[in-house]
Amino acid sequence: SKYAYVRNFELPDPLLPGTFMLFRLDGHSFHRFSDTHEFTKPNDVRALQLMDHAAKDVMEEYPDIVLAFGESDEYSFLLRKSTALYNRRGSKIVSTLTSLFTSCYVFHWPKYFPDRPLLYPPSFDGRIVLYPTEKHIRDYFAWRQADTHINNLYNTTFWALVQQGGQTTTEAHATLKGTFSKEKHEILYARFGVNYNQLDARYRKGSVLLREEIVPKEEDGVQEHAAPATPAPEEAAEGKAAEEDAVAADRTVADGTENEPVPLPEKAGSTRRANKASAAKKKAKQPQTRIDLLHCDIIKDEFWDTHAGILAE
Amino acid sequence: SKYAYVRNFELPDPLLPGTFMLFRLDGHSFHRFSDTHEFTKPNDVRALQLMDHAAKDVMEEYPDIVLAFGESDEYSFLLRKSTALYNRRGSKIVSTLTSLFTSCYVFHWPKYFPDRPLLYPPSFDGRIVLYPTEKHIRDYFAWRQADTHINNLYNTTFWALVQQGGQTTTEAHATLKGTFSKEKHEILYARFGVNYNQLDARYRKGSVLLREEIVPKEEDGVQEHAAPATPAPEEAAEGKAAEEDAVAADRTVADGTENEPVPLPEKAGSTRRANKASAAKKKAKQPQTRIDLLHCDIIKDEFWDTHAGILAE
Amino acid sequence: SKYAYVRNFELPDPLLPGTFMLFRLDGHSFHRFSDTHEFTKPNDVRALQLMDHAAKDVMEEYPDIVLAFGESDEYSFLLRKSTALYNRRGSKIVSTLTSLFTSCYVFHWPKYFPDRPLLYPPSFDGRIVLYPTEKHIRDYFAWRQADTHINNLYNTTFWALVQQGGQTTTEAHATLKGTFSKEKHEILYARFGVNYNQLDARYRKGSVLLREEIVPKEEDGVQEHAAPATPAPEEAAEGKAAEEDAVAADRTVADGTENEPVPLPEKAGSTRRANKASAAKKKAKQPQTRIDLLHCDIIKDEFWDTHAGILAE
Amino acid sequence: SKYAYVRNFELPDPLLPGTFMLFRLDGHSFHRFSDTHEFTKPNDVRALQLMDHAAKDVMEEYPDIVLAFGESDEYSFLLRKSTALYNRRGSKIVSTLTSLFTSCYVFHWPKYFPDRPLLYPPSFDGRIVLYPTEKHIRDYFAWRQADTHINNLYNTTFWALVQQGGQTTTEAHATLKGTFSKEKHEILYARFGVNYNQLDARYRKGSVLLREEIVPKEEDGVQEHAAPATPAPEEAAEGKAAEEDAVAADRTVADGTENEPVPLPEKAGSTRRANKASAAKKKAKQPQTRIDLLHCDIIKDEFWDTHAGILAE
Ligand SMILES: Nc1nc2c(ncn2[C@H]2C[C@H](O)[C@@H](COP(=O)(O)OP(=O)(O)OP(=O)(O)O)O2)c(=O)[nH]1
Ligand SMILES: Nc1nc2c(ncn2[C@H]2C[C@H](O)[C@@H](COP(=O)(O)OP(=O)(O)OP(=O)(O)O)O2)c(=O)[nH]1
Ligand SMILES: Nc1nc2c(ncn2[C@H]2C[C@H](O)[C@@H](COP(=O)(O)OP(=O)(O)OP(=O)(O)O)O2)c(=O)[nH]1
Ligand SMILES: Nc1nc2c(ncn2[C@H]2C[C@H](O)[C@@H](COP(=O)(O)OP(=O)(O)OP(=O)(O)O)O2)c(=O)[nH]1
Ligand SMILES: O=P(O)(O)OP(=O)(O)OP(=O)(O)O
Ligand SMILES: O=P(O)(O)OP(=O)(O)OP(=O)(O)O
Ligand SMILES: O=P(O)(O)OP(=O)(O)OP(=O)(O)O
Ligand SMILES: O=P(O)(O)OP(=O)(O)OP(=O)(O)O
Ligand SMILES: [Mg+2]
Ligand SMILES: [Mg+2]
Ligand SMILES: [Mg+2]
Ligand SMILES: [Mg+2]
Ligand SMILES: [Mg+2]
Ligand SMILES: [Mg+2]
Ligand SMILES: [Mg+2]
Ligand SMILES: [Mg+2]
Ligand SMILES: [Mg+2]
Ligand SMILES: [Mg+2]
Ligand SMILES: [Mg+2]
Ligand SMILES: [Mg+2]
Repeated sequence: SKYAYVRNFELPDPLLPGTFMLFRLDGHSFHRFSDTHEFTKPNDVRALQLMDHAAKDVMEEYPDIVLAFGESDEYSFLLRKSTALYNRRGSKIVSTLTSLFTSCYVFHWPKYFPDRPLLYPPSFDGRIVLYPTEKHIRDYFAWRQADTHINNLYNTTFWALVQQGGQTTTEAHATLKGTFSKEKHEILYARFGVNYNQLDARYRKGSVLLREEIVPKEEDGVQEHAAPATPAPEEAAEGKAAEEDAVAADRTVADGTENEPVPLPEKAGSTRRANKASAAKKKAKQPQTRIDLLHCDIIKDEFWDTHAGILAE
Repeated sequence: SKYAYVRNFELPDPLLPGTFMLFRLDGHSFHRFSDTHEFTKPNDVRALQLMDHAAKDVMEEYPDIVLAFGESDEYSFLLRKSTALYNRRGSKIVSTLTSLFTSCYVFHWPKYFPDRPLLYPPSFDGRIVLYPTEKHIRDYFAWRQADTHINNLYNTTFWALVQQGGQTTTEAHATLKGTFSKEKHEILYARFGVNYNQLDARYRKGSVLLREEIVPKEEDGVQEHAAPATPAPEEAAEGKAAEEDAVAADRTVADGTENEPVPLPEKAGSTRRANKASAAKKKAKQPQTRIDLLHCDIIKDEFWDTHAGILAE
Repeated sequence: SKYAYVRNFELPDPLLPGTFMLFRLDGHSFHRFSDTHEFTKPNDVRALQLMDHAAKDVMEEYPDIVLAFGESDEYSFLLRKSTALYNRRGSKIVSTLTSLFTSCYVFHWPKYFPDRPLLYPPSFDGRIVLYPTEKHIRDYFAWRQADTHINNLYNTTFWALVQQGGQTTTEAHATLKGTFSKEKHEILYARFGVNYNQLDARYRKGSVLLREEIVPKEEDGVQEHAAPATPAPEEAAEGKAAEEDAVAADRTVADGTENEPVPLPEKAGSTRRANKASAAKKKAKQPQTRIDLLHCDIIKDEFWDTHAGILAE
Repeated sequence: SKYAYVRNFELPDPLLPGTFMLFRLDGHSFHRFSDTHEFTKPNDVRALQLMDHAAKDVMEEYPDIVLAFGESDEYSFLLRKSTALYNRRGSKIVSTLTSLFTSCYVFHWPKYFPDRPLLYPPSFDGRIVLYPTEKHIRDYFAWRQADTHINNLYNTTFWALVQQGGQTTTEAHATLKGTFSKEKHEILYARFGVNYNQLDARYRKGSVLLREEIVPKEEDGVQEHAAPATPAPEEAAEGKAAEEDAVAADRTVADGTENEPVPLPEKAGSTRRANKASAAKKKAKQPQTRIDLLHCDIIKDEFWDTHAGILAE
């Protein structure tokens, strides 16, 4: 039509090739949302598991996401530097990923909060940051996990003072003002008998979602079911099994053509067979992957040495 | 921490001031989504009303959106050109609006599809396009509504041929190939007794969401409940009442400072009073607005002449 | 070659269509450059005329520039909002225009400073700013001319105090600190007998370069030589003739295709005929324009009313 | 003033940190410019040396440029990835560098073309491309030098056929159509007795400008004069001495603060002493560098291994 010229105002917004894309989202006004929905303090395991679930769904849909890290109301996703997702169009990627995460969060809400219906629709902001080198990526994740540690130690001590120590929130703030890490550990141990380092690693370390290749056995298909049974080394190190099953997902090999995400496994519906068929075709050439949930250290070298494939292409 | 330098890689992405922002979102792979959830063809009124509901929620939260237009799996939102929403940061706006719409869509789904649970989480892409002048904005909306007309006339005729005429989809495509508008009208009328112009305006014109100022009466508070009773002129002209109640919403006056959205009305929760209080404070200085749903022509002058406030500042 | 992939890192940088482009350049470290080349203070007419000459050359080469304004070591150029120059590629435009201006500045230097050879190569920075409406453009030029007035009044008074009043620069700064416009006028008049408003309009108002259409006479060709003889109305109003001849230049009609600049008139060389021929072809369809140099007010309505064509398309 | 708000339309345009900046400029319409000024074909040594001179001047002014490569009417400059030049503002960098190069080209013209005055002012376009890794940078320069080889072999053979072989340009094109490298070598050798590999390396390899640190001797000051005497290894390998003296230049150590370029050494003028003084102060903490002109291979490893400092920080 004669109006179609308005389309010309849509300008390209490609992201620099050959560069790592870091996509981070964060809950919009979750101070209010967590209050309204009476999240437990300092950490609500249901809320955190819901975040993990939504993040894992996003990774299953977008095979170019190879690593993710979550804490509080935020999640960070690393896309391989060669990704051709949506031709690397910035707005398309940031809007679609934020949308899918949000959708999964609302969709799965009742599984985690069966007795507490959603009172209003939550939303998230999203952004993409580009990083040129592997070092930047390591430092980025270290930044988020260091933040997790600082916040959680503070919040844990703060709420112990309030909930068990009988202080008002004003008093608790005053008690903690100017204290160092070590002093918070001491308060927790001396006053409340809490050994901070023995608290749930999920709270202390945040959540790491890692895409791993499934080494194919002779008989394919068996593999897929066997995979989740093997706990990832970090989880073993932390002394606990994976809290959620690892789910097998396809990984599209980046090949310079525009990528479309892989459809989520459908639970029902008439198009099922058609999709299965096309998925089967893809499986022939692509390595199988599963996504593991860990609560391990990602600041030190060990994690990156063990999972060197994350940053390699 | 020593890792915080990674923050410097987050670059500013401000949108040109003094320019209209057009935010459009579109369902991701809704061909598949509508199939899987068995939307009626060519139009599923439940699906379209759900889109309208989500869009209205977004407008209630973001007072700087003054007009919206929806059709099929897409919605376009016009932000006033002086908006200071999130300091006009592109990614922040595009991600947050897309997220909120998605959240509302999933949140309200059961109201519109009570017998058909969501089988997987739907998602949307979003984009912002800048337009310098009022003429561009009029042409933009004319572009979308002309598109609605073309698509709906085609789809209506196509599915009449298939559902009532007994053609296969291949045959129906062949029948319509190369036909002009007039011929499709004739097929509908001659073969199926359908007067296209008498079909539901919702399908022919799409959905228009319009923010209107509420002229304050002597006694404030009464006003808010009285408002929805008055059908908007266009709806009357189309011969039908508003399908949804118009909902009063605050409008923040743009004043050059960074804007935060207005919280959705809470249904419950401990923070209620605090929010009510702050909302009350705002009401003192801001004009009350309500959002009307119309299915009227937005290509000709009449609509724009009647609602001159949309493009004026 | 196998290395050509590096080309993919060159990302598009289109400027929003339908928007005025304002290109401003400014001398790099001209504090030092003007000192080294002993520019007269507060204004060096040779330096200012050289700026005007370079700016006019740029306008002759780029017909989509319809207006320019210069003061001190800076020049602002307005491109018509429909310009398709270099497909509106930001870097291409900003670099090429800055380059050509610089080149002309060095090229013409000896004409204005015959006794003072260039001691080192001067350079300029350049930037493009987009403005959506005519009002912004008027305000932009008002901003620059108001700046000219403020600076020139200050500098004129300052150097009068130093050069004629025998103050040190420190003393002169102190004398002027906190003074209003009116007081500076009084100092000039009372102490030095200078009526500021009778100083050269060039210094008080800056330089305006205006592209005007040449109304074709019966015999083409005569027109071109006749044109400069007619002083522009504003210059007459200021009581002085044009300091430079107006030069006829082609104007390319913007037509949605990528534009290339019009070659500068060659003074000699073997390609002369070929270029003349192609220039002649263009002349057939394009209106003739000439560029006038004025030193008039561009803040009030009169200028814009008289030259309504500048902002119209 | 009340107009100053227009400044808000100037949006930030920072370039991604931690990324190599490649700045390339190219002569605008040099087909015409080289014709008009009767450059010798296929290569005009005066024109190429003038390009090198201008490029070296730019490197002397901007210490963050560590390498440059020139051929034909283009030059590429590599800025260290940590550069804080103009706070990494895109337009500022691209416009200023293009401007300075242009200025130097016009400024030095008479030295290289003493008998052929400039007939009109030449101009250049400029662009910045970001590259994340060292490999990209090596591939970038390989891309340009491979291009030099292809073009020069073609042009050399073409003009031999025309100038010495008496072919028309149309005939020469036809002769070369579809020929491989080897066949062009044979034509040159068999018909014209020319061994391509013995032609001037400048034409075959292009120009490499390399910033090298000057290893300080016991007595500072002597160093500066001694430096140029040592030919760079690649030039020796090519069997010829440096065609131009290497010039000592300061290198500013990137330190996260905004950088300003280093002033060109002034040839005269009253500010001389002041600048010398400030330059002297800088010398205390910064390593001395000189810029070498080479015509060596930059595709193979040897160059990069020998000059590992270029890509390291
Ligand atoms: N009680 C509780 N609150 C949580 C939990 N996880 C997150 N939150 C809340 C606490 C914080 O107020 C908030 C996250 O902080 P943010 O800095 O993201 O602030 P907020 O989302 O309110 O604002 P924003 O829109 O992101 O600027 O979410 C949890 O497990 N339990
Ligand atoms: N049956 C039915 N389908 C609808 C209705 N509204 C939208 N759809 C479907 C039909 C189209 O296949 C699809 C919208 O077309 P699009 O061009 O947006 O394609 P789609 O969303 O599949 O792909 P995309 O991810 O947007 O590129 O949504 C409806 O009311 N009834
Ligand atoms: N004596 C004299 N100086 C002039 C004249 N026109 C410009 N200048 C000098 C005075 C100012 O120091 C300088 C222009 O001021 P700017 O704000 O552009 O500063 P400058 O170019 O030094 O630094 P920049 O690189 O633009 O940040 O040029 C003139 O006609 N006579
Ligand atoms: N005769 C001669 N011509 C040269 C020499 N170096 C460059 N040129 C000319 C030949 C080419 O026509 C031109 C460079 O090619 P370009 O692709 O840059 O084209 P041109 O500058 O004409 O157009 P552009 O504005 O860059 O798109 O410069 C030389 O040493 N001798
Ligand atoms: O922690 P962030 O990055 O979300 O930082 P912020 O202070 O919330 O700022 P914004 O979300 O507005 O970028
Ligand atoms: O109709 P649009 O704008 O969504 O156009 P498209 O063909 O779907 O393209 P994209 O969504 O990839 O911009
Ligand atoms: O007057 P401007 O716009 O040049 O402003 P500035 O203070 O010189 O800043 P910059 O040139 O670095 O934008
Ligand atoms: O060789 P380049 O990069 O200059 O390529 P081009 O074909 O001249 O294109 P442009 O200069 O318009 O980018
Ligand atoms: Mg935030
Ligand atoms: Mg948050
Ligand atoms: Mg947060
Ligand atoms: Mg689309
Ligand atoms: Mg869609
Ligand atoms: Mg659609
Ligand atoms: Mg400046
Ligand atoms: Mg300056
Ligand atoms: Mg200036
Ligand atoms: Mg080019
Ligand atoms: Mg060129
Ligand atoms: Mg070239």
